[in-house]
Amino acid sequence: MKHIISVAVENKFGVLARVSGLFSARGFNIDSLAVGETEDPTISCMTIVVKGDDKILEQVKKQLNKLIDVISVKDFVNKEHIDRELLVFKIGVDKKTKPKALRTLKRFGANAIKASADTVMVEAVGDPSHILKMLEALKGFKVKEMVRTGRIAMAL
Amino acid sequence: MKHIISVAVENKFGVLARVSGLFSARGFNIDSLAVGETEDPTISCMTIVVKGDDKILEQVKKQLNKLIDVISVKDFVNKEHIDRELLVFKIGVDKKTKPKALRTLKRFGANAIKASADTVMVEAVGDPSHILKMLEALKGFKVKEMVRTGRIAMAL
Repeated sequence: MKHIISVAVENKFGVLARVSGLFSARGFNIDSLAVGETEDPTISCMTIVVKGDDKILEQVKKQLNKLIDVISVKDFVNKEHIDRELLVFKIGVDKKTKPKALRTLKRFGANAIKASADTVMVEAVGDPSHILKMLEALKGFKVKEMVRTGRIAMAL
Repeated sequence: MKHIISVAVENKFGVLARVSGLFSARGFNIDSLAVGETEDPTISCMTIVVKGDDKILEQVKKQLNKLIDVISVKDFVNKEHIDRELLVFKIGVDKKTKPKALRTLKRFGANAIKASADTVMVEAVGDPSHILKMLEALKGFKVKEMVRTGRIAMAL
């Protein structure tokens, strides 16, 4: 089962490596990870999306709570929340296909940052289902390059 | 000097901890980190924002290139690029201040995900200067909770 785990940590040197090391030591692969500031600049929030054995994950969460620079650990499974991800990507277009690409992007609320004769650079935000539907709708276009932030989440 | 470094890695177990460990071993604190899939699902992209001694950073980049699961290392300093970050946050409002909050958000292209009588939950995307200006404009409101993805970048 996929879990979104949000770990609030002291914004200190080495915490990141310690937290991600805990997951890899237990054999968990991290699907995505986003680390940024919070409303308090001394505290960072690490949002981790991970899939694996639920019992082992419970142990990992307990160990996280014991790390000295960890302030809190939240698991959003079975909790009402929103999650969002940001993607920046380039798709290949030509004179004929460009209008269709731009229409499709607009339909999904995605923003064309820059468009040339053969490429459109896009920023898009959404929850996983929205992102999936958009990428499906763009299947006729070659994705030349893509960077994703990984998901962040917040309780409703 | 602040650097945005983008590291393409094989989507394998433990790479994340090894890469972030390299930075912390050299005394670098990571400002933000975003890890997500790329156009090739076997490859993840880690976007790291880091500040520190440029000479030591050169050494870190060389060491990164030697790691077995690292495919490429790009530094966006002095390169034409765009960078973007996603924020989700809640601000406190009341009957009187809510319309102003919603107007300010609209002006910065931010999206009110959910609004109640005393709280507005927001998603916002932009480059660092856009985000800074938006947070400045919202200074009269209490930020109750905030999660940020960290920046991702792409060459223009």
